[in-house]
Amino acid sequence: MGQTKRIGILTSGGDCAGLNAAIRAVTHRAIGTYGWEVIGISRATLGLLSRPPEAIPLTLANTYPLLTAGGTILGTTNKGNPFAFPSAEGEFSDRSDEIIQGYHQLGLDAMIGVGGDGSLAILRRLAQQGNLNLVAIPKTIDNDLGSTERSIGFDTAVNIATEALDRLHFTAASHSRVMILEVMGRDAGHIALNAGIAGGADIILIPEIGYTIDGVCQAISQIQAQGRNFAVVVVAEAVCDEGGCQVTQTHAQGQSRLGGIGQYLADAIAQQSQAETRVTVLGHVQRGGIPSPLDRVLATAFGVTAVDLIAEGKYDHMVTWQKRQVVSVPIEDAIAQYRAVDPQDTLVKTALGMGIYLGEQ
Amino acid sequence: MGQTKRIGILTSGGDCAGLNAAIRAVTHRAIGTYGWEVIGISRATLGLLSRPPEAIPLTLANTYPLLTAGGTILGTTNKGNPFAFPSAEGEFSDRSDEIIQGYHQLGLDAMIGVGGDGSLAILRRLAQQGNLNLVAIPKTIDNDLGSTERSIGFDTAVNIATEALDRLHFTAASHSRVMILEVMGRDAGHIALNAGIAGGADIILIPEIGYTIDGVCQAISQIQAQGRNFAVVVVAEAVCDEGGCQVTQTHAQGQSRLGGIGQYLADAIAQQSQAETRVTVLGHVQRGGIPSPLDRVLATAFGVTAVDLIAEGKYDHMVTWQKRQVVSVPIEDAIAQYRAVDPQDTLVKTALGMGIYLGEQ
Amino acid sequence: MGQTKRIGILTSGGDCAGLNAAIRAVTHRAIGTYGWEVIGISRATLGLLSRPPEAIPLTLANTYPLLTAGGTILGTTNKGNPFAFPSAEGEFSDRSDEIIQGYHQLGLDAMIGVGGDGSLAILRRLAQQGNLNLVAIPKTIDNDLGSTERSIGFDTAVNIATEALDRLHFTAASHSRVMILEVMGRDAGHIALNAGIAGGADIILIPEIGYTIDGVCQAISQIQAQGRNFAVVVVAEAVCDEGGCQVTQTHAQGQSRLGGIGQYLADAIAQQSQAETRVTVLGHVQRGGIPSPLDRVLATAFGVTAVDLIAEGKYDHMVTWQKRQVVSVPIEDAIAQYRAVDPQDTLVKTALGMGIYLGEQ
Amino acid sequence: MGQTKRIGILTSGGDCAGLNAAIRAVTHRAIGTYGWEVIGISRATLGLLSRPPEAIPLTLANTYPLLTAGGTILGTTNKGNPFAFPSAEGEFSDRSDEIIQGYHQLGLDAMIGVGGDGSLAILRRLAQQGNLNLVAIPKTIDNDLGSTERSIGFDTAVNIATEALDRLHFTAASHSRVMILEVMGRDAGHIALNAGIAGGADIILIPEIGYTIDGVCQAISQIQAQGRNFAVVVVAEAVCDEGGCQVTQTHAQGQSRLGGIGQYLADAIAQQSQAETRVTVLGHVQRGGIPSPLDRVLATAFGVTAVDLIAEGKYDHMVTWQKRQVVSVPIEDAIAQYRAVDPQDTLVKTALGMGIYLGEQ
Repeated sequence: MGQTKRIGILTSGGDCAGLNAAIRAVTHRAIGTYGWEVIGISRATLGLLSRPPEAIPLTLANTYPLLTAGGTILGTTNKGNPFAFPSAEGEFSDRSDEIIQGYHQLGLDAMIGVGGDGSLAILRRLAQQGNLNLVAIPKTIDNDLGSTERSIGFDTAVNIATEALDRLHFTAASHSRVMILEVMGRDAGHIALNAGIAGGADIILIPEIGYTIDGVCQAISQIQAQGRNFAVVVVAEAVCDEGGCQVTQTHAQGQSRLGGIGQYLADAIAQQSQAETRVTVLGHVQRGGIPSPLDRVLATAFGVTAVDLIAEGKYDHMVTWQKRQVVSVPIEDAIAQYRAVDPQDTLVKTALGMGIYLGEQ
Repeated sequence: MGQTKRIGILTSGGDCAGLNAAIRAVTHRAIGTYGWEVIGISRATLGLLSRPPEAIPLTLANTYPLLTAGGTILGTTNKGNPFAFPSAEGEFSDRSDEIIQGYHQLGLDAMIGVGGDGSLAILRRLAQQGNLNLVAIPKTIDNDLGSTERSIGFDTAVNIATEALDRLHFTAASHSRVMILEVMGRDAGHIALNAGIAGGADIILIPEIGYTIDGVCQAISQIQAQGRNFAVVVVAEAVCDEGGCQVTQTHAQGQSRLGGIGQYLADAIAQQSQAETRVTVLGHVQRGGIPSPLDRVLATAFGVTAVDLIAEGKYDHMVTWQKRQVVSVPIEDAIAQYRAVDPQDTLVKTALGMGIYLGEQ
Repeated sequence: MGQTKRIGILTSGGDCAGLNAAIRAVTHRAIGTYGWEVIGISRATLGLLSRPPEAIPLTLANTYPLLTAGGTILGTTNKGNPFAFPSAEGEFSDRSDEIIQGYHQLGLDAMIGVGGDGSLAILRRLAQQGNLNLVAIPKTIDNDLGSTERSIGFDTAVNIATEALDRLHFTAASHSRVMILEVMGRDAGHIALNAGIAGGADIILIPEIGYTIDGVCQAISQIQAQGRNFAVVVVAEAVCDEGGCQVTQTHAQGQSRLGGIGQYLADAIAQQSQAETRVTVLGHVQRGGIPSPLDRVLATAFGVTAVDLIAEGKYDHMVTWQKRQVVSVPIEDAIAQYRAVDPQDTLVKTALGMGIYLGEQ
Repeated sequence: MGQTKRIGILTSGGDCAGLNAAIRAVTHRAIGTYGWEVIGISRATLGLLSRPPEAIPLTLANTYPLLTAGGTILGTTNKGNPFAFPSAEGEFSDRSDEIIQGYHQLGLDAMIGVGGDGSLAILRRLAQQGNLNLVAIPKTIDNDLGSTERSIGFDTAVNIATEALDRLHFTAASHSRVMILEVMGRDAGHIALNAGIAGGADIILIPEIGYTIDGVCQAISQIQAQGRNFAVVVVAEAVCDEGGCQVTQTHAQGQSRLGGIGQYLADAIAQQSQAETRVTVLGHVQRGGIPSPLDRVLATAFGVTAVDLIAEGKYDHMVTWQKRQVVSVPIEDAIAQYRAVDPQDTLVKTALGMGIYLGEQ
């Protein structure tokens, strides 16, 4: 099985369900099949900036319980771009060389980065600059990486958002209210669209399709005209108010702000339609669940294959899920293929076919 | 089995899980055992104000599927006190006589009211004024009725809040954050206390016990000193800021406001402790779940016995759960025994025994 | 939107989660978009055999609550092949013409059949014989239809089986036992393979790959040698005992037999390895859950597109899920492409990569 | 806070959900509040038989993750009565003195035993013989300890059984079947009764109340006469066949036998009523779940108070839950108060009030 290697793994960007399952799979494959060493790097690239680098040995024993654990035992961050690293004084400097040094200080032969498009772009730049051997695993609850049908964390996030909709239906109906659920989705509306269809929403607002408050209120009126006394609205956090994005985004930029687009809609609908409205901002519970079986299978398949790519020396590649198979693609291509919701998507047609208001097409 | 009767049932106040199970049980017992008629009154007392009164016949068939359904098919409201009923012009008038008339127009021999202390006080006043035959079933997610160990809806609400805490733990740990979860609890802290213990919270703030931001931040520092990089805080919506209740309550008075005490804490902790904080306001999902088995058993036992009380002519009584049995008590006594969290409660001691910060005792 | 039509829908074969969501979607699309009539046919083709045919009108109102309901309100059966229909005397006759008559008596312009490969083959034969306009939607918890990546019911079944594994892990570890879980899978091992990976099984036995009790016991010994005192085994009900299929299958042919392959394994392992074993036969709970969000999305997308196929006159086609899109394929091709677990499948490699015993390859 | 102590904790008897939460609470209270040492004893009293005794130090760190983990990290057994300990040759000898020695070799000042009535009786006999300082915490999914309203593990077991019933309803209705669910309950029918009411069963059979197959089939006929085409039956594993307990019990005495009373009923009903029947034996999944919030709260409150009892020197007592408070009672009394289902219980009346067949009263 070739030479013994020491490989590292880090998780980067927002956490999600299934990261730990991927860490476990990487460790099992590398140790169990190849007899390598596996090093878990702490808090994304921040662990490589520390001196000595912050990292722990991963073993069959310490990764065994990780299959059902949400989040990442390695920690992660969505701050600290190494090419523009913030100092305490608020200035930014390029610390990429230190990170590359950290990789070498750990004696790594290769590194697996688990992240979304932003994190992977940074990791790839580091890898190219430092001649590091990088393999990537895609994770993002937004599912906006075009080269893979599914990224780790998406299925669980949709499940949690759908469960919230199931619950809100009961209370909406009992109180004759319009309930608004604001879900995550920084740029893409996939969570809102999937959960909206699965949860029987009447109105789904996503950043890819414009809407008007008039349109929303007309949809609500139509529902009332058909004899139903309540409605359920799902909105992605990245959706703007009518006048453009004047509304502070809920989870933008490391802030913790409530009262974003969900609140805006609740107020606007209440004012225009006289309906009683309530808003729920689902927030971080979407990231933190026990991974769904599908996310566990995906993370495990990705983890095993990522290690195999290292064994083959097939660096600078990312594992993807395509037509029931794990297939590798160049990271460069993977990052380039951003996938927002396309108005021609099957699920857009499905939502429209169910009479769901999706905005002005 | 005595004379045939026609009985009514209404649900009043905020909705919760288990109301439909109670409606189903009342219907089964009344029709199946006694051969009576059952009338479901719409939207609490509002259905009795309409002319003709708004109500539907309940049958074994149309109540069969209700065991697992959240909310109430009858609808409910927490507005519209009949003794001070708001007009469109914003004035208030006493419309209690109309409601009493509505009861008679429906030809009811007795009525079962499902509600919390506020609703039951109003229903009892109506019953006394109009000589109506009233039997009560307690429901409140706040579980603040002292005469019954459990009210319908509480167990499910605690389950949902705990599940949110389970999820937040993962993401708190992954990102080294202080996560704050704001749960319901208009006056009493039972949901926060139970979910906080069940969900492994580090800090639980309830309206019954004062706290300081200093105390909260010290508790967080202590956790960090022990080597843990994250903390989880649960706060009841009714908790005030340090200076007294200047903070708008989240769900107060028919408003839909985010950014209440949870946001206040997130900001105050972030400022004083430098910790990264995030807040989640769980909101109406706490009301809307599929009822837990315990809530279904409770609602079914209450519904059956409430009908039996009518059969016995034991009016003006409420069913309660005491030491594994359903026992009836005068509604008057039931309403009088408000139960907030007592600092001597077993669960307060339990939380303190686990090292949870509960405020300044 | 063309001519008004009257279309029928029936569900056939074993029930599963998501059938009702498909019925709801078909009804919404047909009525809401096209203004057609929709007729729900009872108990698969049995409803068309009754005189008058047994069927109910489907409306927006009576299908609204179906999104989250497991099973099928139309009823279904996996008995009663119309070409060899069993009489009370145990003889078989061809009653296909009566079913075709039933279709015409209902005045149908087209019919949507929801079923697995067996049911769809029968429906297609009926359609060809009677010149009926048939469109198909694939459902099977076994997910063995090759032309579609996913069939309705599979994701939910995997979720339920995985949840059982999660639970069995705790009790296996507490009691130092080998726990065996027998899951459904009449011919194909997809449920066992997916749930086994997702649920961290140590041994997965599927009908596509032979095994030996020796191999199983060696795998258990290896686990013990590594210091773990328990093991978890998943086995598909269609797996045979070592000597070939002498073991009565658990759910075969309308019987209700416990003590199939799961029990055989428990006894054989206990005898050979001295391990304490326990077996759980998950059975029909795998069919009956609330559909997962993914199954709801799939069923809704399939339902909408199936109606569109009728609108286009594209009969004799089945909807499929391929690379994030719904695509139609001739039913003939769909039935021909049976897909068992291929030893080259990504998930077989994944399981092997995790050190799971999968039999003798 | 008095003298430093070293205390032990062991879990005994069948595992259940919440044991780990109790272990965690004991550890937190003993270390966090009193500064004591805590020793976890392996596999009930078997750990005290090993030389050196098999035990691990429990710390805040290694018990932190236990709140949501099912089962017991200490291991447990329901075999190995020390007063009649089986040798490899199948003979029995009294090894109680060795266990008492083991306690002293560990240098314990006191010991907390978590168990049901059988385990606690043995532990008490050991304590009396060896002058050990014993405090008890009640756990049993059967909830048959009369002195406490709730024992650890019961709520979770009821939840899991109810969830299975919810699922079986869908498939029963879809296929017009009589579904039989066999649940645990070695002597008492509390799980069956609670889950049966919560899950809308039509027939509940418990060991405390006799039944006839005639009675069961009449109940099914009545349901059919009312126009419903399916029925759901819950039966406790301890229920006997009509002729007395000739049927092998499913989980009796360390055996793993399927095809007990559930299968007997399925066959008998099918034969007598012509109904199509299916049986599910839920088995060990009932023990193994993530503990419900209620079980976590209960286990935590019990654990904290059990340590307090040691601090007070109040040995030979068991913690109980009575009227919202934890109260201690002498173990002797606790064991003496066995509580089966009483025909006068509220829940028996509730079930009868809902028209559920409960046997011949």
